[in-house]
Amino acid sequence: MNNNAFIPSGWENEIQARVARIAAQLKAADIDALLLADNVSLYYTSGRVFAGYTYITALGEVLYCVRRPVGYEQCANVHYIRKPEMIPALLKSQPKKLALKTDVMPVAEYNRLSQVFPEAEVVDASAMMRALRSVKSPFEQVLLKEDGVRHQAAYERIPSIYKPGMTDVQLQIEIERLLRLEGCLGIFRVQGPSMELFMGNILVGENADSPTPYDFAMGGAGMDPSLPVGASGEAIAPGKTIMVDACGNFNGYMTDMTRCYRVGEVSDLAMKAHELSISVNHRLAQFGAGTPAKALYEEAVKMVEEAGMADYFMGHMQKAGFVGHGLGIEINEAPVLAPRSRDILEEGQVVAIEPKFVIPGVGAVGVENTFIVRHDHLERITNAAEEMIELK
Amino acid sequence: MNNNAFIPSGWENEIQARVARIAAQLKAADIDALLLADNVSLYYTSGRVFAGYTYITALGEVLYCVRRPVGYEQCANVHYIRKPEMIPALLKSQPKKLALKTDVMPVAEYNRLSQVFPEAEVVDASAMMRALRSVKSPFEQVLLKEDGVRHQAAYERIPSIYKPGMTDVQLQIEIERLLRLEGCLGIFRVQGPSMELFMGNILVGENADSPTPYDFAMGGAGMDPSLPVGASGEAIAPGKTIMVDACGNFNGYMTDMTRCYRVGEVSDLAMKAHELSISVNHRLAQFGAGTPAKALYEEAVKMVEEAGMADYFMGHMQKAGFVGHGLGIEINEAPVLAPRSRDILEEGQVVAIEPKFVIPGVGAVGVENTFIVRHDHLERITNAAEEMIELK
Repeated sequence: MNNNAFIPSGWENEIQARVARIAAQLKAADIDALLLADNVSLYYTSGRVFAGYTYITALGEVLYCVRRPVGYEQCANVHYIRKPEMIPALLKSQPKKLALKTDVMPVAEYNRLSQVFPEAEVVDASAMMRALRSVKSPFEQVLLKEDGVRHQAAYERIPSIYKPGMTDVQLQIEIERLLRLEGCLGIFRVQGPSMELFMGNILVGENADSPTPYDFAMGGAGMDPSLPVGASGEAIAPGKTIMVDACGNFNGYMTDMTRCYRVGEVSDLAMKAHELSISVNHRLAQFGAGTPAKALYEEAVKMVEEAGMADYFMGHMQKAGFVGHGLGIEINEAPVLAPRSRDILEEGQVVAIEPKFVIPGVGAVGVENTFIVRHDHLERITNAAEEMIELK
Repeated sequence: MNNNAFIPSGWENEIQARVARIAAQLKAADIDALLLADNVSLYYTSGRVFAGYTYITALGEVLYCVRRPVGYEQCANVHYIRKPEMIPALLKSQPKKLALKTDVMPVAEYNRLSQVFPEAEVVDASAMMRALRSVKSPFEQVLLKEDGVRHQAAYERIPSIYKPGMTDVQLQIEIERLLRLEGCLGIFRVQGPSMELFMGNILVGENADSPTPYDFAMGGAGMDPSLPVGASGEAIAPGKTIMVDACGNFNGYMTDMTRCYRVGEVSDLAMKAHELSISVNHRLAQFGAGTPAKALYEEAVKMVEEAGMADYFMGHMQKAGFVGHGLGIEINEAPVLAPRSRDILEEGQVVAIEPKFVIPGVGAVGVENTFIVRHDHLERITNAAEEMIELK
């Protein structure tokens, strides 16, 4: 087995650069080491999900402490352990100040790891990792652009699979299949344990106005109270809109793209709101690095209020408090485009912008695109046609 | 709106009984109250996933402290809050001893909730809730039996969707569609943040011997290092087996069922191992309540060793250390059928038994069934035919 096979082929330089960036941040914060345990962090620091821990020091050393899978025993920086109590024996020196990620680590695991390093002062690395991960390297941007292309290819086949008389759930099942045949991995990663979604949200007609517990832009009653979001069995009838917002994860990273469809003619109000969403998308794409994230939210609200559409903006019965969000490995990364956000857009950040409307009696309308932040604009990487397409 | 609409129709008595059982346990442990925050616990105590908290006292009072969704303002026991700091003002008396679930609660949330109740001694309710949830009520057993019927109906259509020349991924996509058309919710809930699976695991040929980082019975390389489990694009060729282990969640609860298929003739060794798996399933089903969970594991190992098949049992390159597991809302509930398990089977517990084998060059074989523990046997609720079916 190749000595570097633990790091997937082609990822070696990227992983080296990530480790160096983390080490620099640790050094700047006077932290000796960072111990990462969650799947997303393990993937970020190695290029693969494994069972175990990544340990990174301020000096730039990295140790992959692996419980499973077997097979990488000879690889550089890989150390097999049965339990975390075996980590200290692998270290040249014990950390005096150790960082963990408290935003996603369960209490029981935190307590156990703290006991593994009883002499260490334990600090939180959540904000540091969130900021680091929000800026995507050229390597990551390539993966995200690949997602955009494949996401678009799947969406462009949606009109071909529609059959009159379908319910929202039936249409969703065929969209899931299109995405999967295009190579979508299916899994939809959300940071934190409180948000859940199966592959995507397809909203038809009145169901778009059903409030959800989850912190997504749109709602839907879902098929069961155990997963109360999205398609609910609503018939796709003339005069209704169909909003498709489905998983763009083709390689571990994901794009976010929403497109809308209609059956027959829908109300002028719905058509106007959809056009407004496209205009907001285009307007916000003129901002670039250095813009406060909340300025994008404020600009969207201003355009919506000037058009007299505030009642329907970001929901009707229940409203979402943002117009966009960072994304990458997870759907909810930094920055957040919201009124109280303190984030400032940085070059290389990736954001989804989703100015959406719920029109009572008609359904949800609007588009969502994923953009890479450039110095003077946002580069759109989800390029399916934006107009509302009629399904026949 | 109906005054009880927060509790889904038909769930009222069940939820009342669950709250009473939890209250009795709190009282017995001299704990004043339990604050639950994770989606699974919220669903267990209300019949629906919502954003917020369930607060249960030792006196049997329940408060649903809801952030989202809107719409239940008039319902019994429902109190809208914007943040957890608003909970104490809703209480008649403040808890002196408060239980939280540390097995799944992130550290940051735990610290915040501890601050909300600065006078309270905070204790862990993880083991208590795990034990309580492991025993399924007649109401829950009905849901699980419904899963079994629908799970079987979807699996019985698998031979009809097979086409020669398919890869494992292509077959998996069509199986996903069958399950979804049968009403499967798709989402596959696993306790804890470290295990991930998209809807199911379909293993063909050599790929069954690829070790995975996850703590599932079987492996597979997956399509990408960001989700290294399951189907990998392996061609379905003559002489190979196809193991199908896919999501049985049709109503918030889930059954677990594995069936195997073959293309053409497979080796005698593979056929023998598959028959042995069926025999182990049948033999273990003769145990009932009161049996130590580890005795089932030991009996399985004994049968496997007597047949000279230990090399292939529960994996080949990498082995899983159990032969079965409890399940219900999540795929990994108590009890665990493993050599060091201290669990004793109780009436009403639900377990999946999955004695599986990986035969090098051929693939994975074996069956998995879900059983309800009765006083003198295990009642099988996944009743698809167990023999290895030829796909043509």
